[in-house]
Amino acid sequence: MTKIDLCPKFESAFQLLGQRWNGLIIRVLLEHGAARFRHLSVNIPAMSDKMLVDRLKQLEDAGIVQRRVYPETPVRIEYELTEKGKSLEPALNEIQHWAEQWINE
Amino acid sequence: MTKIDLCPKFESAFQLLGQRWNGLIIRVLLEHGAARFRHLSVNIPAMSDKMLVDRLKQLEDAGIVQRRVYPETPVRIEYELTEKGKSLEPALNEIQHWAEQWINE
Repeated sequence: MTKIDLCPKFESAFQLLGQRWNGLIIRVLLEHGAARFRHLSVNIPAMSDKMLVDRLKQLEDAGIVQRRVYPETPVRIEYELTEKGKSLEPALNEIQHWAEQWINE
Repeated sequence: MTKIDLCPKFESAFQLLGQRWNGLIIRVLLEHGAARFRHLSVNIPAMSDKMLVDRLKQLEDAGIVQRRVYPETPVRIEYELTEKGKSLEPALNEIQHWAEQWINE
């Protein structure tokens, strides 16, 4: 497979992670493991709950986040990274390192 | 500096690299060093010349690509990565590795 063939995959990865909040949600889940909605919401205070709902759905559709429903009373819902999501950590670290070093604004 | 402060830098890095062609242009320049417009154009055949002009300008504005004009006859113009651009290599490698492994479509 040549690099030109890989290009759409590569770009779709960057597009997903370039969307506002997605990188940060993944970061929080990497650090905390499974988390309830409220935990995510409190840890990313600048993001609205509606936005968090949308982003979690998008990350779930992309196979990066898994939503688990525990049939308790009241029902408990937790979000955690899939293997696909967890394996983003080295890439996120490298991008963060680069951004810290080179992006000033 | 907390991760939440870093977030906009992180996202702006991903947004830039998530734009169609930018990652590939950087890849070609990483492999070939300084290159003339024609060289880039031939190596990324699916991209129009107009798009290549736009992307190079965007990458130049972002401080990732440097455009050098050599006052010869005819004038020679070459594009190469700045230090900021070259230092993207580990991050691009990690993202590419992840995308190869996890993105199927």
